[in-house]
Amino acid sequence: MTTEGVIEKQCIEPKITIVGAGPGDPDLISLKGIKALKAANVILYDALVDERLLGYAPQESIKVYVGNPSGEEDFSQEAVNQLMVDYALNFGHVVRLKGGDLFVFGRGYEELDYAASYSIETDVVPGISSAISVPGLQGIPVTHRGLSESLWILSGSDNNGDLSAELKDAARSKATVVILLGFDKLTEIVAIYQEVGKGGLPVAVIQNGSMTNEKIAVGIVNTIVETAEEQQIDNTGPVLLIFGSAVELHHQFQPIRQFFELQGSDD
Amino acid sequence: MTTEGVIEKQCIEPKITIVGAGPGDPDLISLKGIKALKAANVILYDALVDERLLGYAPQESIKVYVGNPSGEEDFSQEAVNQLMVDYALNFGHVVRLKGGDLFVFGRGYEELDYAASYSIETDVVPGISSAISVPGLQGIPVTHRGLSESLWILSGSDNNGDLSAELKDAARSKATVVILLGFDKLTEIVAIYQEVGKGGLPVAVIQNGSMTNEKIAVGIVNTIVETAEEQQIDNTGPVLLIFGSAVELHHQFQPIRQFFELQGSDD
Repeated sequence: MTTEGVIEKQCIEPKITIVGAGPGDPDLISLKGIKALKAANVILYDALVDERLLGYAPQESIKVYVGNPSGEEDFSQEAVNQLMVDYALNFGHVVRLKGGDLFVFGRGYEELDYAASYSIETDVVPGISSAISVPGLQGIPVTHRGLSESLWILSGSDNNGDLSAELKDAARSKATVVILLGFDKLTEIVAIYQEVGKGGLPVAVIQNGSMTNEKIAVGIVNTIVETAEEQQIDNTGPVLLIFGSAVELHHQFQPIRQFFELQGSDD
Repeated sequence: MTTEGVIEKQCIEPKITIVGAGPGDPDLISLKGIKALKAANVILYDALVDERLLGYAPQESIKVYVGNPSGEEDFSQEAVNQLMVDYALNFGHVVRLKGGDLFVFGRGYEELDYAASYSIETDVVPGISSAISVPGLQGIPVTHRGLSESLWILSGSDNNGDLSAELKDAARSKATVVILLGFDKLTEIVAIYQEVGKGGLPVAVIQNGSMTNEKIAVGIVNTIVETAEEQQIDNTGPVLLIFGSAVELHHQFQPIRQFFELQGSDD
């Protein structure tokens, strides 16, 4: 104020906001997420994020594609963490825009923790979880009176890429079981359900949930591998598996039920 | 077109859109939810919905408060279903605005099913689930590498108001367990965890998550009833219980850990 003539230095206030973009449909981002994008200097965005969301950010903001940090390719999680911090220290407000909800296998905490280790201010904008919304949009409520009183969400693989050991307990439980990142292991998961005598349990497999290229296969444990193949479901987009009685509420399940009733088989 | 002089009758196109408003913070509604509100002729809204959201609806739209249909008071679920259909047939586009995500104990399917029984067009706009977002906003990721590889969401009570029978299996599992509608039964739930030898497991209790009047209690199974009381948590707003190792990532847990380590006790 009193030092006239001194050129005012632009003050950078580093901040990192982690935003969950939701299951895929770009209109399923929250208003709070859009407000964060509008106030961003830099956006670091994932493979699963619809690029139309970048249109909310200021034109002059820096947009950086970081691919799929949990995959083998593109940037590693460590590289993304470091980019996030470097951009925040040099440009100010970084929005880390991630597909999904952030916290169910989303590694949102790891990124927040890394930012906090640099004493950078952080904020969190949760997203709509695909594990609940994708079945719901298809007419499968993950809980429903008389059919399912709880929801168990698991990953198909553990940290080593092996089949998650918890899947056996999940298969035995009465919960609706939603499995993310498990399509590669569908045959093994089906075997677990068959071992516990649940070959006739309704199952759905949904790829690209909430997006225009969505695909669904509805069947029972004993037939779902074949049905998923018929529907040409593959790993080119996120796939979600839903095991449980609530799947019978899907409109495609009625003819399946009738078929098995005609056969006089409930397995 | 050719019958000049005939007064054109306004054509009503009944439609029902069920919208999840999210955990409480009005900015956590989705853009798609806001678009539905803007196109509404009638809004039927819940006790858990922030009334500021009604501001997105056209001024001339009809706003009807239907309280808490799952509670004892206000409108019954049947009355809400009937209102929804009556308004759609008489006024056109009804937005049924509900707190939460719609499908985890949200009875969204029941409302859609009822509308469909009248052959009324329906649409679904999922919301952000409090079960995942409320812990996340508090710095508790429901899954986290090395601490929790799955999430089991349950209700405290079954349809008869009794303690959910699945809670015992959940307590034995390695999942992060989130219990909705369970604060009344906290003492009984704590007893279940103690029975399976998990008296030292981290627990958090959060009331009014994501809202300005949010309260949190962080502790372990053996102490959480007392801690929740100290934090004056009560049933005047939605309460969520989180049992699991991931709770130890909450910043309030560090002094608790130190206290028990000093005592040389981990139970």
